[in-house]
Amino acid sequence: MMFEPFWKKMSDKYNVTIGGGDLMSYFSDGNNVCWFLEPELGAAIKRLHGVVGNAVTDDRYIVVGTGSSQLFQALLYAFTTPGSPEPVSVVSSAPYYSAYAEVVGFLRSKLYKWEGDAYKFNKKGAYIEVVNSPNNPDGTLREAVVTNRTGNGNGKLIYDFAYYWPQFTAITGAADYDNMLFTISKCTGHAGSRIGWALVKDKDIAKKMTEYITISSIGVSKESQFRAAKIIEVVCNGIQNVGSDKSENFFEYARNILSKRWQKLRETLQNSEYLILSEYSQQHCLFSGKPTETLSAYAWLESKDDTKDCNEFLRGLKIIGKSGKICGAHHKFARINLMCREEEFNQFIERLSATRS
Amino acid sequence: MMFEPFWKKMSDKYNVTIGGGDLMSYFSDGNNVCWFLEPELGAAIKRLHGVVGNAVTDDRYIVVGTGSSQLFQALLYAFTTPGSPEPVSVVSSAPYYSAYAEVVGFLRSKLYKWEGDAYKFNKKGAYIEVVNSPNNPDGTLREAVVTNRTGNGNGKLIYDFAYYWPQFTAITGAADYDNMLFTISKCTGHAGSRIGWALVKDKDIAKKMTEYITISSIGVSKESQFRAAKIIEVVCNGIQNVGSDKSENFFEYARNILSKRWQKLRETLQNSEYLILSEYSQQHCLFSGKPTETLSAYAWLESKDDTKDCNEFLRGLKIIGKSGKICGAHHKFARINLMCREEEFNQFIERLSATRS
Repeated sequence: MMFEPFWKKMSDKYNVTIGGGDLMSYFSDGNNVCWFLEPELGAAIKRLHGVVGNAVTDDRYIVVGTGSSQLFQALLYAFTTPGSPEPVSVVSSAPYYSAYAEVVGFLRSKLYKWEGDAYKFNKKGAYIEVVNSPNNPDGTLREAVVTNRTGNGNGKLIYDFAYYWPQFTAITGAADYDNMLFTISKCTGHAGSRIGWALVKDKDIAKKMTEYITISSIGVSKESQFRAAKIIEVVCNGIQNVGSDKSENFFEYARNILSKRWQKLRETLQNSEYLILSEYSQQHCLFSGKPTETLSAYAWLESKDDTKDCNEFLRGLKIIGKSGKICGAHHKFARINLMCREEEFNQFIERLSATRS
Repeated sequence: MMFEPFWKKMSDKYNVTIGGGDLMSYFSDGNNVCWFLEPELGAAIKRLHGVVGNAVTDDRYIVVGTGSSQLFQALLYAFTTPGSPEPVSVVSSAPYYSAYAEVVGFLRSKLYKWEGDAYKFNKKGAYIEVVNSPNNPDGTLREAVVTNRTGNGNGKLIYDFAYYWPQFTAITGAADYDNMLFTISKCTGHAGSRIGWALVKDKDIAKKMTEYITISSIGVSKESQFRAAKIIEVVCNGIQNVGSDKSENFFEYARNILSKRWQKLRETLQNSEYLILSEYSQQHCLFSGKPTETLSAYAWLESKDDTKDCNEFLRGLKIIGKSGKICGAHHKFARINLMCREEEFNQFIERLSATRS
């Protein structure tokens, strides 16, 4: 909801109108591996990555999903084989996005199994490592760790790039991995649309992902795809100064808000007796051409007193966060979502200020 | 695509326009058990069932899903408990919708297990029975069978009412079961929207279903929900002669098309040497007030010669169907989808006519 004011102001320009007889079929393009991907969305996604420079789309299959959560599950399915004697281990370096653990475990699948922190994983055999960069919850830039640590070369890698957009971090290059996930929720803020996409190098993986989404939901909302395509196209026009959309750079706008929020947060906590806020280094951003610091979507807070449960401490201030424990980290850590409405953010800062006395 | 001409003609009236700043949040109504259900869609669903008279909505929770496939999976999750020694058996009387088997089995869950035909199920203990009425693939009206047959009273029932709409069958009363599934794909033909809904009596089941959909896709496309609400509202206006939508009765239109298709199909196969077409009895329809025959969305064909694989026979005529085998039935049966575009249907009839010589 942090970006809502931008979209409310520009609402008309990003309008879509859908007639009663439009978008009725299950099918979007029977000749595409991902037969339920609207061609306009596929084109918009390629253009967006080209404009931002954050990922390679050449020689990649695009698979659309009901959010990137569905695509993550589709990749687990694509990487595993029914009838294997052991479920494949799924890991991610702590602190990790707690939903990975939930999604992997909730159906008690015999195909895969959550094994937690990639830094503690020492098994032989097949595994799947999720690399989330910038990382939810702590905003750090990440690389895969298991192969380097253990020499185990039987891993499949999933790069979750939900936050690899210019408002959150420096764009240091076009990511060129085999399996990359993105979502419009974090890119433009349209979380209600439930649109994610995967850029996938291997055709068989793209086919199996498509199979997963076919079985689990027979495709992905056409209305959301249609609207996401429009929003992405107009965002690109704004950045590229095309036509009437000139000089509306959504990412600059979004970075500006986040930057102000981080500044307020740092000021509030600079002499705090109780809490430490994580620091991020600067890198050169190829998108903006400037030295750019990570502005994480989340504040990752640490209790100065190791014995203190950070989330409990915040709850005492009427601040609702997520405990580090459920992210595979120590209870001295907690995560706060900064992508809220302005008034909620201000209330958060106000409540946090109470600790300064 | 069978109903597309209706919607194309009426396209403007069923228009929706979505602004760039609309429908951005994950949340629709934080006070509802199903927090991602758009209130307008909930209201439209209640109105539709009231107007058609096919289901009770009082004292029911509405859970929206990415198609009814996702809701079926949500019910499996809601009916089972992690850590149980045995997976719960899932059954449906053959011939059954083959996707049930796929959906239950594809992730090799330890929570539940596909056990096929409800008529052959004889285990003790917990089970889940899916009742699809009218039934895909054979168009018959169905009731639950396991408890009556075996005395096993530990069953949970899922009523899949995808086809319990006036174009397909007589509406003989308002269904009043604990767990009922519906989908806009079959009701109005808007398959691309991926909108299904469950009417659920028990609050805890509705909560667990919501939890399932939260983990698997963090809700359901808001754009699709918004559009489905509009389409349902205008359909209701047409039936109830409200305002300018007077005298557009979608269900009459849809029934009329299906009726013509079935007439052509019966004529084509009436003296067939090779194929038998299933017959349906008439019942009084409370919606139309007339005696009404089932007009199934599928033709369920049977080879006169038991040894002949019906689907192979059809393939020889360049007709693509689904084998009875994958629906848990004999290979002498095959299913043909009749909900295609007019030109495809005519081609099907033409190819089928070749058997008359």
